[in-house]
Amino acid sequence: MDSDYRNQLFEQAKEWIFSAGKRIRESMQEPLQIETKSDENDLVTIVDKQTENFFASAIRSQYPDHGLLGEEGYGDALDNLDGTVWIIDPIDGTMNFVHQKRNFSISVGIYHDGVGEIGFIYDVMEEVLYSAKRGEGAYKNGERLPKLQEEVPLKRAILGMNHYWLCKNRVRNEHVMQDLAKTVRGLRTYGSAALEFAYVAEGLLDGYMAMSLAPWDIAAGIIIVHETGGKTTDINGRKLDLLQKSPILTCNPSLQKNLLSWLDKGRE
Amino acid sequence: MDSDYRNQLFEQAKEWIFSAGKRIRESMQEPLQIETKSDENDLVTIVDKQTENFFASAIRSQYPDHGLLGEEGYGDALDNLDGTVWIIDPIDGTMNFVHQKRNFSISVGIYHDGVGEIGFIYDVMEEVLYSAKRGEGAYKNGERLPKLQEEVPLKRAILGMNHYWLCKNRVRNEHVMQDLAKTVRGLRTYGSAALEFAYVAEGLLDGYMAMSLAPWDIAAGIIIVHETGGKTTDINGRKLDLLQKSPILTCNPSLQKNLLSWLDKGRE
Repeated sequence: MDSDYRNQLFEQAKEWIFSAGKRIRESMQEPLQIETKSDENDLVTIVDKQTENFFASAIRSQYPDHGLLGEEGYGDALDNLDGTVWIIDPIDGTMNFVHQKRNFSISVGIYHDGVGEIGFIYDVMEEVLYSAKRGEGAYKNGERLPKLQEEVPLKRAILGMNHYWLCKNRVRNEHVMQDLAKTVRGLRTYGSAALEFAYVAEGLLDGYMAMSLAPWDIAAGIIIVHETGGKTTDINGRKLDLLQKSPILTCNPSLQKNLLSWLDKGRE
Repeated sequence: MDSDYRNQLFEQAKEWIFSAGKRIRESMQEPLQIETKSDENDLVTIVDKQTENFFASAIRSQYPDHGLLGEEGYGDALDNLDGTVWIIDPIDGTMNFVHQKRNFSISVGIYHDGVGEIGFIYDVMEEVLYSAKRGEGAYKNGERLPKLQEEVPLKRAILGMNHYWLCKNRVRNEHVMQDLAKTVRGLRTYGSAALEFAYVAEGLLDGYMAMSLAPWDIAAGIIIVHETGGKTTDINGRKLDLLQKSPILTCNPSLQKNLLSWLDKGRE
């Protein structure tokens, strides 16, 4: 992708994200809509759909030859990533959205012929924007994120993972995962995959693993993590297929081999 | 405790907390001190001690008849809570402090003859202050927190708990806790007990349980949670003894009975 074109796309996407974020913040302040729990669930559905629709309309009007992969049904039914494709999660962390009214994000990844060119993860309520262009580093509100530390021993690592890894599950042996839990320094669970990718890029988490994530959960995160030196694969160490759900591992590069070998040990 | 005196104490404590927070933020920006991991561990020790010492000196000079319970050795060896006692954790969430440079707090509870009068939990990097006076409600940066929702069914609850509850442990049967994990709507782990209390008060979490917390981890939290209608006991439903470590449960009042019965089922 041509650099000028990519810069223009980056600025346009950023403008739309800020605009979508502002709408979301406003919609959360309408008291009628958040009166009861069931209304809250309606609210997230409405806001999710409205936000994706906003992006879909904007993209189709401005970039009619671009494709869109999204969760809410306004995207295209793509069977490949040829050309320029936007991969969007309008609200990543819907449970946080409903329950906490914060700790959720807009995730936008822009790929060209399958290569990640631009990534944005926007913490809507904190108004913190993580962004990256391929080969040009990752940024947090315009400030460049440093490269990840070279050596993080597992026993000093903080990992993001949800608790279900430690319960009987269909992905990995829970006892091996419990041993891993006791081996690392600490575990955190924040409830937004996209933000957890951003935290890996920032070094707040040294790794994050999830049992099943959709393309829109990870498309931006992969690019941003990559730009601070992190690595993302499926939990078998294979390159991710952005047209389907996958169990993923994203981490500091010095931990990848070790974590993959724990995950390998956890196969039943 | 007389209301005027309490108000004066509240304002004084708040001023010291802001001042301590400012010092901590400044000390984290001295690049020499955060150069390597071992220096980071030194840093947390130094900042922890400096901060507690700051409070200890201030309290002894201003309120020579008050007692102090603290983690870092500047407090008094108390065997009761008679009179006015400050219970202080200068940095709650030290792992977050070291590793994330955020998501830690200063926790200050002021008790009079064993009754919680004033509580503060200060998210140092976000500059968010949770505060409460007994019977006068809880506040977040000066804005009153609403009372907790009356009815939260367990299956819609978000709980804060660390992952070790789901591994073999000495407190509760891990299989029962795994069943609980699968019953609730979601689990979160943030790594600062005091902040997790604050989140319960705010309704971000509907409950938080921890296997072993010291008085300084919970002294402020109990008061703040109480002021939005939440309940705190040990995991057997007993009143907490603030002179020793305890396994604790703090939660929305509508969940207390149910969560205590899960915890009861988890006795081996």
